[in-house]
Amino acid sequence: MPTSTNSPIDQPSIRVSHKERAAVRRDTKTELVRCGVELCTEKGFQVSGINDLLQRVGAPKGSFYHHFASKHEFGEAVIDAYAEYFARKLNRHLDDCTRKPLTRLADFVDEAQRGMAKFDYKRGCLVGNLGQELSGLDEDFRTRLESVLCSWERKTAECLREAVESGDLSTAHDPVLLANFFWTGWEGAILRAKLTKSAAPMQLFADIFFGKVLR
Amino acid sequence: MPTSTNSPIDQPSIRVSHKERAAVRRDTKTELVRCGVELCTEKGFQVSGINDLLQRVGAPKGSFYHHFASKHEFGEAVIDAYAEYFARKLNRHLDDCTRKPLTRLADFVDEAQRGMAKFDYKRGCLVGNLGQELSGLDEDFRTRLESVLCSWERKTAECLREAVESGDLSTAHDPVLLANFFWTGWEGAILRAKLTKSAAPMQLFADIFFGKVLR
Repeated sequence: MPTSTNSPIDQPSIRVSHKERAAVRRDTKTELVRCGVELCTEKGFQVSGINDLLQRVGAPKGSFYHHFASKHEFGEAVIDAYAEYFARKLNRHLDDCTRKPLTRLADFVDEAQRGMAKFDYKRGCLVGNLGQELSGLDEDFRTRLESVLCSWERKTAECLREAVESGDLSTAHDPVLLANFFWTGWEGAILRAKLTKSAAPMQLFADIFFGKVLR
Repeated sequence: MPTSTNSPIDQPSIRVSHKERAAVRRDTKTELVRCGVELCTEKGFQVSGINDLLQRVGAPKGSFYHHFASKHEFGEAVIDAYAEYFARKLNRHLDDCTRKPLTRLADFVDEAQRGMAKFDYKRGCLVGNLGQELSGLDEDFRTRLESVLCSWERKTAECLREAVESGDLSTAHDPVLLANFFWTGWEGAILRAKLTKSAAPMQLFADIFFGKVLR
């Protein structure tokens, strides 16, 4: 029976440097958080099991606590990672100076609808999901999730302020209140899209927001 | 040592009728569902344990399956019980012919704000909570929860239609779309009230709904 050339027996002994080991550890941590975002968005935080997570990532059983002091610390890392990912997405639209301010917000709305369809309306927004699940159970998570929403609101308020300055929106509007209203209703629209398995609630919310509220 | 007069030894043997036993069983079932509504609203469905539930109600361990074929069937009973309770609350306001139609809806909004404060913004709406948690995981729950929301929307659309008929709302409005928008955004406002631990998001949503959307 021929020995496979891929067998470790045939390989020269490999010396793994301290730096390389640190890189693998960092990658495993990143991978655990990435998978955690997926799991928590689909199933929730409390029922997402550590062993299931390690298995999905292919990390050794029991290695979780090399990377995180507790499941709570892991939850914080998951929220932070999602917040960063989402801010990049939102900023890509709202900072696009080639488009008018209100068109940028409409672009974001369109992309969000495509994103919901892509995952068959099963994922939604991690901040909405965990906010619903955890805000009554854990003060740290509640304030962390609320501060993420506030950061998205500040960015949206800036965009609406630009629309006021450029004359596309009446000066009678308060960009801060409007941004607050937008994110409050938009999270409701995401939830309803999951319930109806369709983008219709997101479209209706956007139609009334742009067509009546901003009028 | 005197024998306690409360000891069963002193009691004449009590014959419990078939009817009485059935009534106790019915009460236990009702009590399990009532407690289930509380638990599921605060913690979610998946993490609400059957043993915890039985302990809270004071029912014997292992008695759950006398009342429900499965935890799923129990979840359905919990949703139905909440839907009935909530419909009574909504109807009490929206059927109150001594008030103008839009005032009735505003009354409901005011009561909901007081209800959220009463439980320190920890409970919110069972349909929103379970919708967020379960709609991506279980098709039966998803359609059941969505149909509950649709029933609240139909009732709200009737009220808005009355407002159009009485001239308090422009005939340019579509009561069905408005009711859809109201419930979509309102569920978002309840979620945000949990996140901010305040009624401000509910008030802002109502202010813009009545002040701008219905204008």
